[in-house]
Amino acid sequence: MKLYHQAILPKGFKANGIACGIKKSGRLDLAILYSDTPASASCRFTTNKIQAAHIIMDKRHLKYNRGFRAILVNSGNANCFTGKVGLKDAQELIQSLGGILGINKKSILVASTGIIGRRLPMFKIKKALPTLINGLSKQGIEKVKRAILTTDTFAKEITARFNIGSGVVTLCGIAKGAGMIAPNLATMLAFILTDANITPRALDKALGICVAKSFNCITVDGCMSTNDTAAVLANGEARNNLIDINNNFNLFLKALNTVCLKLAKLIVSDAEGATKFICIKVKGAKNFSEAKKTALCIANSNLFKTAMYGENPNFGRIIAAVGAGNIDVKEKDLRIKVSPLNKKNIDVNVYLNRGDMQATIYTSDLSPRYIKINAEYN
Amino acid sequence: MKLYHQAILPKGFKANGIACGIKKSGRLDLAILYSDTPASASCRFTTNKIQAAHIIMDKRHLKYNRGFRAILVNSGNANCFTGKVGLKDAQELIQSLGGILGINKKSILVASTGIIGRRLPMFKIKKALPTLINGLSKQGIEKVKRAILTTDTFAKEITARFNIGSGVVTLCGIAKGAGMIAPNLATMLAFILTDANITPRALDKALGICVAKSFNCITVDGCMSTNDTAAVLANGEARNNLIDINNNFNLFLKALNTVCLKLAKLIVSDAEGATKFICIKVKGAKNFSEAKKTALCIANSNLFKTAMYGENPNFGRIIAAVGAGNIDVKEKDLRIKVSPLNKKNIDVNVYLNRGDMQATIYTSDLSPRYIKINAEYN
Repeated sequence: MKLYHQAILPKGFKANGIACGIKKSGRLDLAILYSDTPASASCRFTTNKIQAAHIIMDKRHLKYNRGFRAILVNSGNANCFTGKVGLKDAQELIQSLGGILGINKKSILVASTGIIGRRLPMFKIKKALPTLINGLSKQGIEKVKRAILTTDTFAKEITARFNIGSGVVTLCGIAKGAGMIAPNLATMLAFILTDANITPRALDKALGICVAKSFNCITVDGCMSTNDTAAVLANGEARNNLIDINNNFNLFLKALNTVCLKLAKLIVSDAEGATKFICIKVKGAKNFSEAKKTALCIANSNLFKTAMYGENPNFGRIIAAVGAGNIDVKEKDLRIKVSPLNKKNIDVNVYLNRGDMQATIYTSDLSPRYIKINAEYN
Repeated sequence: MKLYHQAILPKGFKANGIACGIKKSGRLDLAILYSDTPASASCRFTTNKIQAAHIIMDKRHLKYNRGFRAILVNSGNANCFTGKVGLKDAQELIQSLGGILGINKKSILVASTGIIGRRLPMFKIKKALPTLINGLSKQGIEKVKRAILTTDTFAKEITARFNIGSGVVTLCGIAKGAGMIAPNLATMLAFILTDANITPRALDKALGICVAKSFNCITVDGCMSTNDTAAVLANGEARNNLIDINNNFNLFLKALNTVCLKLAKLIVSDAEGATKFICIKVKGAKNFSEAKKTALCIANSNLFKTAMYGENPNFGRIIAAVGAGNIDVKEKDLRIKVSPLNKKNIDVNVYLNRGDMQATIYTSDLSPRYIKINAEYN
């Protein structure tokens, strides 16, 4: 497998991003990912009980899963807590887009991120759709990766390539993150495009496995979003020998896992106000769930996060956070090891002495800048 | 019932506080609360799985509950995660104290607050015990209320007086809080002394009821401490008609509830770096538990807290926090009302339309000063 630290569209995909006026700053805020031929799709969404309009609509479309042709993404407005009107707006957009592209509206997925509780500026978006589509190109991914951002300070991108026999399969991933990041999932959008020839069942299984260990293992502020979406489209244009659950699956899984984990880590690296990238590994747990829960208790502790920011070796806060997790740890069994705090990357290792399972959570510190950003964001 | 916004010791109690050198700053750090006659006691402790030495010891003493004479408190050191040595240290202290006072060591409760993972400076404390005891007086409570503080900026105190027949009953409460505040309970110490003549069973029942709606309904940072303790001593010196579960109980309950709630609110008012006092009321829930859970989801959301700090009406964050609570709220049913953000006191009212139950949680905003305090505290 070969990795490229940039987004390179796989065969049969085009993309474009423009500024249509959702963001007052004039930055890019509308994007499309497009496949020349019908692609299989798999998605994972936030488990928040309040869900954005795009999630309600995407779930309906995914039930049919006849072959997807496009993902329409906007930033600057979450189209969430907008009720029936918000859902109608999303439907109107895919109707228009489908009309212009000459494709079934049910072959379109949508994704939104931004402020909650406001209607989409429909007039602006609809007016911009022809321009968006006219500009579709291979290079357009460069604009898409920026058009999906909100408070992010850099674009998150990665491309993986591997061979199946003589077929070269490409996976291209882009994501946005920054704040309201916690499992499951985060104010996070991640799109992975691949030309792999893979059965829908294998695609969905692979995404489930990879999301569990990547996007569901990061937290910035413990705040679960209403809009989180991780979507993968596979259009088969690599014409590789078919990947299914029993054939070539692990090759694909490895590449998808690499892409998801890299995007997840990039999201944490660019967490709002972050000065540290912290990897918390909990070992010696009875099962994955308690290892993950313990690691999250530490990762979401404001006292731990401020200690990391201050490079303050106040490890009692790790102990307090572990004990708060309601897992029956014994004081005498607990072992904690923290790497030097004056570095950007910090490793926290916790050993529970209860079993053989482990989990890793990636998080950031909590700095005054996080507060500044979020005290003002509106 | 009459309220005094200061600590006034009930009949038969004395107190003292001194600086023995645990705190490098030279501030008061050792305190004693003393009853001339044996008092009934009831306590509630943190539910953190890692518990300070004083909690382990107090629980043992409370099993006997023969009549308590003193509470020894230190600040600046939590005596937590100190293993068997920490427990031995605590035992050695009550042994010495019991010897000097001529009372059974099992009639002494202890409480510690401060940094986790360091041994108590035993020599300093033991050396200071005679001075501490020599200074016992009615006025000594003035020093105790300061000696129990850590990052608090003011002492928390309240006294309630009420009559039962011709007997005048006094309840005097003091507390410390500031950070690592979340149910259940918080890095919080609260001591309530009363001269009420009350059965141990009624005392314990009353404390349980009051703690559930006061100290267990506040959160500053969602971080659960290892040392939280709420203790009440009742020595009967008011010689009022006996309070038991069936007689005069509600009179006592009302006074205790007033004292606990006032102390709890004072703790939130003095939360580390706080600029706002926020009261979150969730109504229309199926039961108290889901109302409380929903309110806590909002109260512990860093995005909500920073919005409050920034007086930023980004109410989508309240919606996201409610939805994150895994309670089956419907978007169309949810009603949210927030009082003007430019005031110090803010009311957040959430209506779920699922039932008739409600809960109130008190919390603070999250400011850059919280981070400064905790980045440096060690």
